[in-house]
Amino acid sequence: MPQPAALIVGAGDATGGAIARAFAREGYAACVTRRSADKLTPLVAQIQADGGTAQAFGSDARKEEEVVALVEQIEATVGPIEVMVFNIGANVPESILTETARKYFKVWEMACFSGFLNAREVARRMVARPLPAGGQRGTILFTGATASLRGGANFAAFSGAKMALRALAQSMARELGPQGIHVAHTIIDGAIDTEFIRSNFPERYARKAEDGILNPDHIAAAYVMLHRQPRDAWTHELDLRPWIENF
Amino acid sequence: MPQPAALIVGAGDATGGAIARAFAREGYAACVTRRSADKLTPLVAQIQADGGTAQAFGSDARKEEEVVALVEQIEATVGPIEVMVFNIGANVPESILTETARKYFKVWEMACFSGFLNAREVARRMVARPLPAGGQRGTILFTGATASLRGGANFAAFSGAKMALRALAQSMARELGPQGIHVAHTIIDGAIDTEFIRSNFPERYARKAEDGILNPDHIAAAYVMLHRQPRDAWTHELDLRPWIENF
Amino acid sequence: MPQPAALIVGAGDATGGAIARAFAREGYAACVTRRSADKLTPLVAQIQADGGTAQAFGSDARKEEEVVALVEQIEATVGPIEVMVFNIGANVPESILTETARKYFKVWEMACFSGFLNAREVARRMVARPLPAGGQRGTILFTGATASLRGGANFAAFSGAKMALRALAQSMARELGPQGIHVAHTIIDGAIDTEFIRSNFPERYARKAEDGILNPDHIAAAYVMLHRQPRDAWTHELDLRPWIENF
Amino acid sequence: MPQPAALIVGAGDATGGAIARAFAREGYAACVTRRSADKLTPLVAQIQADGGTAQAFGSDARKEEEVVALVEQIEATVGPIEVMVFNIGANVPESILTETARKYFKVWEMACFSGFLNAREVARRMVARPLPAGGQRGTILFTGATASLRGGANFAAFSGAKMALRALAQSMARELGPQGIHVAHTIIDGAIDTEFIRSNFPERYARKAEDGILNPDHIAAAYVMLHRQPRDAWTHELDLRPWIENF
Repeated sequence: MPQPAALIVGAGDATGGAIARAFAREGYAACVTRRSADKLTPLVAQIQADGGTAQAFGSDARKEEEVVALVEQIEATVGPIEVMVFNIGANVPESILTETARKYFKVWEMACFSGFLNAREVARRMVARPLPAGGQRGTILFTGATASLRGGANFAAFSGAKMALRALAQSMARELGPQGIHVAHTIIDGAIDTEFIRSNFPERYARKAEDGILNPDHIAAAYVMLHRQPRDAWTHELDLRPWIENF
Repeated sequence: MPQPAALIVGAGDATGGAIARAFAREGYAACVTRRSADKLTPLVAQIQADGGTAQAFGSDARKEEEVVALVEQIEATVGPIEVMVFNIGANVPESILTETARKYFKVWEMACFSGFLNAREVARRMVARPLPAGGQRGTILFTGATASLRGGANFAAFSGAKMALRALAQSMARELGPQGIHVAHTIIDGAIDTEFIRSNFPERYARKAEDGILNPDHIAAAYVMLHRQPRDAWTHELDLRPWIENF
Repeated sequence: MPQPAALIVGAGDATGGAIARAFAREGYAACVTRRSADKLTPLVAQIQADGGTAQAFGSDARKEEEVVALVEQIEATVGPIEVMVFNIGANVPESILTETARKYFKVWEMACFSGFLNAREVARRMVARPLPAGGQRGTILFTGATASLRGGANFAAFSGAKMALRALAQSMARELGPQGIHVAHTIIDGAIDTEFIRSNFPERYARKAEDGILNPDHIAAAYVMLHRQPRDAWTHELDLRPWIENF
Repeated sequence: MPQPAALIVGAGDATGGAIARAFAREGYAACVTRRSADKLTPLVAQIQADGGTAQAFGSDARKEEEVVALVEQIEATVGPIEVMVFNIGANVPESILTETARKYFKVWEMACFSGFLNAREVARRMVARPLPAGGQRGTILFTGATASLRGGANFAAFSGAKMALRALAQSMARELGPQGIHVAHTIIDGAIDTEFIRSNFPERYARKAEDGILNPDHIAAAYVMLHRQPRDAWTHELDLRPWIENF
């Protein structure tokens, strides 16, 4: 029997990497993607060094044909996708007065349309499989943000994409839950311990010493927990936030 | 002094038409658009017969260059746009499993991206004008729906577009309110008295006799009311719903 | 035919007074209450001087027997109550660590329980009357606040009462709407032009010059508008906020 | 060093019992309460038989002096309260027209005021202790319901109490989070496997065979998970729902 796969779309940042490592530790073949696969070599090597299975895939998540081919390839050569995590963001603030059509579109394309393409392809595979004992066909997880709930000044593009992604998660949960697919959405509210925060928000990063920014491994633990929930007690949405965060 | 203009983007349905008539009655030059202007001839004629000013514009609301040209033309030949209403919908339910990338994109392009393009262009004009006495530069109104709040099964595309449009409205309100632009969003929850409902949902349409479906003129009255609100007491969001509607 | 009555529960502040004046101008007999009626003498005199009808009632809105008697008295001696506005607040912040049981209870009793008592009594009268032509039996309006949506630090009591009042408004709207009673709830988000703000928040009050605080007459206009909505297009909730307010 | 205590207020139903067992398995002294302690004897016996520590307390959660005494007694004779779960409900639907003041009050008193009293007393103890290594002083958990989010027809009392409890949870989280106390709220959306559902909703109970009702042990697992979250990634709110539940 082939090892089941966990597909992490957007594994190029610390969060995606941590999620991939976490599902690999749970026994999944971690299939990690970003536009060019070679940047994922260190992550794959790390997972393999820890005794896990991992494989990198170059895939432009915004291109339907590439997404279709990616899911086809994983299902054919790795195993059935039992978990999918969509983890692509595109948080670039801009005044509405100077926002370009091109960027407004690109933010939606990356942070929402890609999620639709990947989640639909994976869902199609999941529903086509016989319902296993236990009745859970798989889990589809979306990473959200504060902007998923609120359109702040200068965040029309990002918040638009994130709210649309949340609509996707809700709609899929309502349609696919009764078919045994657990669809959930997280609200990450706070800075994550990433290179981006370290470089651009050093004052915020300094709060890491007192656990003031999110540890990607703890985000990943929440994702594994969501996947492990029994089907009588599924969570559709939860927030994750450092203790000192204003909300 | 030129007559100020009210731009109604998406005036092809009963709601858009009623909104145009209402602002014409308030003394605005009603500038109504849809992809092909000739279908708007009866609306323009009706407004003019009632003693109002109206002009039809063919404009593909999804094309940046057409939107830029439209706003340029109105400001140059009609008058300053003081009210903009974005009223394009695209409510086409579909299972996530059979939703096509093309349609998912098109729904967003029509119901959200068009709203961004038109609202941005109008906002740019509004902020560029000197603050008038009273401090209100103009009003930008977006028509929302129940799907703006909730992603129902089979509504991933429509709800995604509508939630993104709501994010746009919130973001613009927060950025532009302090600059004297009133941005508001409505939640239309229920069937509207349109040809579409009459043909496709006759049972629902039959409830018109007991005021069970929304009268477009009453929606329009709410839009005029929003525009007339003094700036110390602006509404950002309100719902409109027939008395018998389940919610 | 007796003049229909508008009952304003909590007419002791500027907002309640403005609402009473507004409904008096609409032709209603304004029945205004607070714990001791004599403090309402100037308001009643002012309405009468403007040609309106008004009467003050001393009523402890938290006491069931007093509320029952009040409604009985108005219906017997004034006219049928066609509008009720519940406008009692109790915004007193306190740390959860020092909040007393007595105050936590009193805030709920004033800002929520009173609303339940008054709204129930009025609703009982409204549903008992034959459905008039037009199908609208009356309107019940509740004044909410930002705390109706969000439990801020130190606002456990006030936010608890306000959220419970919002639950009441929603529940009544869903039950009584189909019986022809329009139940609506407002979110007042910002400082109101009251003696309280003038004395306690002078910096905020200074923003009145630029319309930065809510004019009670404009709040009242929104309440009249809600009451006048035709039953095919009722609003259940709207927010009111000065243009410069952060939200 | 004394064994830390987990106080479960409202341990008389299946959910409270399962939560008590779960925290006992985690090494806590399970302090379980209901109005009369003797009904808790079987639960305590079961926990002890499984090797855990448990103690029953008769406490009227609505009486301030009893709550103060309860917390005093546990802290003095058992150990520091590190976890508190407030689990009292009072779901009794009633038309607004026939709802009595007495019942409206009692529902709030049980489902909300009790939560305030118990949570405040425990919070006072928690903040008074030195911040331990790791910086987490303890966890306070509130059980919510669908009615915490929405006031349905005939649910004015229950929804009012539940929304007010949610306001309490939010307010406490915002005030006490930065002091190292994790406050969280759950939304239980669906029937729970209890004697009440078995007797009153047999059709619904029959769906247990397909995991269509919530298993109290799985709810309890979520509560333990919330308590175990590291402070850089706290969840404030999550929902729990059977896979087939409409939402």
